[in-house]
Amino acid sequence: MMRALDLAEAVENGDLTPAALVELCAEAQAEFAHLNVFATLDLDGARARASRLRADCGLFGLPLGVKDIIDTADLPTEHGSPIYKGNRPKADATIVVMSEEAGGNILGKTVTTEFAYLNPPPTLNPHDAAHTPGGSSSGSAAGVAAGILPLALGTQTGGSVIRPASFCGVAAMKPSYRLLPMTGVKPFAPLLDTLGLFGARVVDVAFGLEAISGRPLRIDGQDFGTPTFGVTRLECAGEADPEAEAALRSAVRALERAGAHVVDVTLPAEWAEAHHRHIVINNYEGAQSLAYEYWHRRADLSPILVKCLEAGRAIPIDDYDDARGAANRARRVMHSVFKPVDVLLTYSANGEAPLRETTGDPRYNKLVTLLGLPAVNVPGYSGAKGLPVGVQIVGNFGDDHRTLAAAAFLERALARPT
Amino acid sequence: MMRALDLAEAVENGDLTPAALVELCAEAQAEFAHLNVFATLDLDGARARASRLRADCGLFGLPLGVKDIIDTADLPTEHGSPIYKGNRPKADATIVVMSEEAGGNILGKTVTTEFAYLNPPPTLNPHDAAHTPGGSSSGSAAGVAAGILPLALGTQTGGSVIRPASFCGVAAMKPSYRLLPMTGVKPFAPLLDTLGLFGARVVDVAFGLEAISGRPLRIDGQDFGTPTFGVTRLECAGEADPEAEAALRSAVRALERAGAHVVDVTLPAEWAEAHHRHIVINNYEGAQSLAYEYWHRRADLSPILVKCLEAGRAIPIDDYDDARGAANRARRVMHSVFKPVDVLLTYSANGEAPLRETTGDPRYNKLVTLLGLPAVNVPGYSGAKGLPVGVQIVGNFGDDHRTLAAAAFLERALARPT
Repeated sequence: MMRALDLAEAVENGDLTPAALVELCAEAQAEFAHLNVFATLDLDGARARASRLRADCGLFGLPLGVKDIIDTADLPTEHGSPIYKGNRPKADATIVVMSEEAGGNILGKTVTTEFAYLNPPPTLNPHDAAHTPGGSSSGSAAGVAAGILPLALGTQTGGSVIRPASFCGVAAMKPSYRLLPMTGVKPFAPLLDTLGLFGARVVDVAFGLEAISGRPLRIDGQDFGTPTFGVTRLECAGEADPEAEAALRSAVRALERAGAHVVDVTLPAEWAEAHHRHIVINNYEGAQSLAYEYWHRRADLSPILVKCLEAGRAIPIDDYDDARGAANRARRVMHSVFKPVDVLLTYSANGEAPLRETTGDPRYNKLVTLLGLPAVNVPGYSGAKGLPVGVQIVGNFGDDHRTLAAAAFLERALARPT
Repeated sequence: MMRALDLAEAVENGDLTPAALVELCAEAQAEFAHLNVFATLDLDGARARASRLRADCGLFGLPLGVKDIIDTADLPTEHGSPIYKGNRPKADATIVVMSEEAGGNILGKTVTTEFAYLNPPPTLNPHDAAHTPGGSSSGSAAGVAAGILPLALGTQTGGSVIRPASFCGVAAMKPSYRLLPMTGVKPFAPLLDTLGLFGARVVDVAFGLEAISGRPLRIDGQDFGTPTFGVTRLECAGEADPEAEAALRSAVRALERAGAHVVDVTLPAEWAEAHHRHIVINNYEGAQSLAYEYWHRRADLSPILVKCLEAGRAIPIDDYDDARGAANRARRVMHSVFKPVDVLLTYSANGEAPLRETTGDPRYNKLVTLLGLPAVNVPGYSGAKGLPVGVQIVGNFGDDHRTLAAAAFLERALARPT
């Protein structure tokens, strides 16, 4: 995989140029074109920009993948749907402008599932082409895993950042709600939709997020002490697959060996209640956000999406309001959860990537998304089929830096020889 | 003015047709074309739709104006900016689909100030062409006031619904935050941006909002008892112009004559604190939302907007985070404010509409927008220059129906002969 932080340092030291980085990506893409990482690839554009972009700070000219529900004025933005074939928005999304201001070089638009919902994408899992890379940020996760991209933007409404990262064996973060601005990103459920970033390691993700957001999020080269981890199996989401449980146990053992404090935590009843309401907000707001497509282009939508939109349309307004109320009550008790611990440790996804007929199950991500909490996938474990299985570090709202530091602590602990 | 509720009843009773309604609007538009209500007028489209739209429920085929920062696939959406001249979005905004599903007939796109900020629009105040209709929903307010439109959609980020309603002498509501979905509406400050509706009277606005949203908001034909009004002068926003104060006193007297309970309330310190942070969130998020336009089309932006965006870019991230924290603290004490009263009564705007070189001052609207509270402008008072001056009814979050009922109570009280 391409390590963003190391590549940026190489550019800073004069050992690499932004133009050479584009060629590294191009070579990997040529080798792994069959993975279908890109909806639109723009190598020539990236080559042209490499010579004139700002490469003395921030992202140092690093190539970047952008999920194809994020608007770009110079490249098509097709939302994974034939309805938007060739769609050229008038403006870049804010996150695109921020990435370019930071010296990022957009290599292309990465494959998204249709409108970031559950219909399986053409993208393959780099670890086994028969298996899904996860969704909905499929191309971004697979592109980083295949070593085509050092960094890639995705979004999460249920589990669309953390789940594909787990399935593809890469690091990724879904930051706190509203940390990254959503202007110009196609909405599905605005109360849930959150931008995130994929990279090879947690340090790479932290580096990229700091450069793009301007917030102090880097965690390389510093010692943040030994965090306290609160382990939860998110029982409200149901029992996990044995491979997910094995990954979690492996993480706990690695943390204990590394001298971390690991305690069991019991989540408040308000959180379980909120977990069960995620689907109400997801489907109700999804039906609202895609109202035009549903009314005017229904024949061009996948059956699984139509079913979701119709379920959303059937939800009584009072149920939606109640779900928002439940989410608010769950947010109000948040601080009590994080009083005894720095972060939570739980499953990222339910085991290894399933076969490509689905994109997998976001059950361990939905609550975290609804609460708006920062979450990081930490790779490092392989399941029975040899596919990656990550674990999830979840922090308190706005505590993104501590969450990244704890995730990096775990990543180092997992990499240590036993 | 065109009374939406009465017109809908006339259609229901067979005394009017949707086609005849379009002609009523066309006649008024021909008479008042000089007011520049529309960015794009679509009389022929409205005539064609009148014969085939659903006119047996909901909006009963009523013509509707749509502020030109709201996406429409069949009409240009220009955001009041030359950058978007001729812009044709791929999809309708969700609120447009909802309005059409409800049997509304979109007559055209109403003039917005540039990206819904402060640069004065070409629209004139129907009561005096030398004066501003207010902003940023200028065309929607003026169109209803001139009797061209029975209903019109607007948005408020500072005071862009309540202020133009006050200046033009019409009713309008900015509902609770997120009551109406923002998908397809050009963002300025997503934490503040809220859709609203203009109509001749409070009952008309309530009727339109119920039809569009599907929520029980109508207040006609029922007695909701006598509300308790808490009077506040929003001292945190500074002293008001004598005409605003006179309008407020007139409202208090009318309420007392009508037998309402009117008490003085003192707002919590958290609210004053939040008031002063509105500008931080407004400018910081504005700079983010218009990042593309700022970087790629700066020469096409007005000086007043560039100044705002540069102020926003200069705000330290910590100040923005602090402002969000202050808003959250102010929201947490909200229920204590509304414990002794049903609604608050305060200024809508600072006096009569000023001359057209500005769009007026949103000082008495910013806090209410930041808190996400439902607010209604109640017309009925005229100032020294003979221009309308409204007062504002503000309700608790989610208490939109009670807010409308209290506003209607005041409107009836003001209309009663003394």
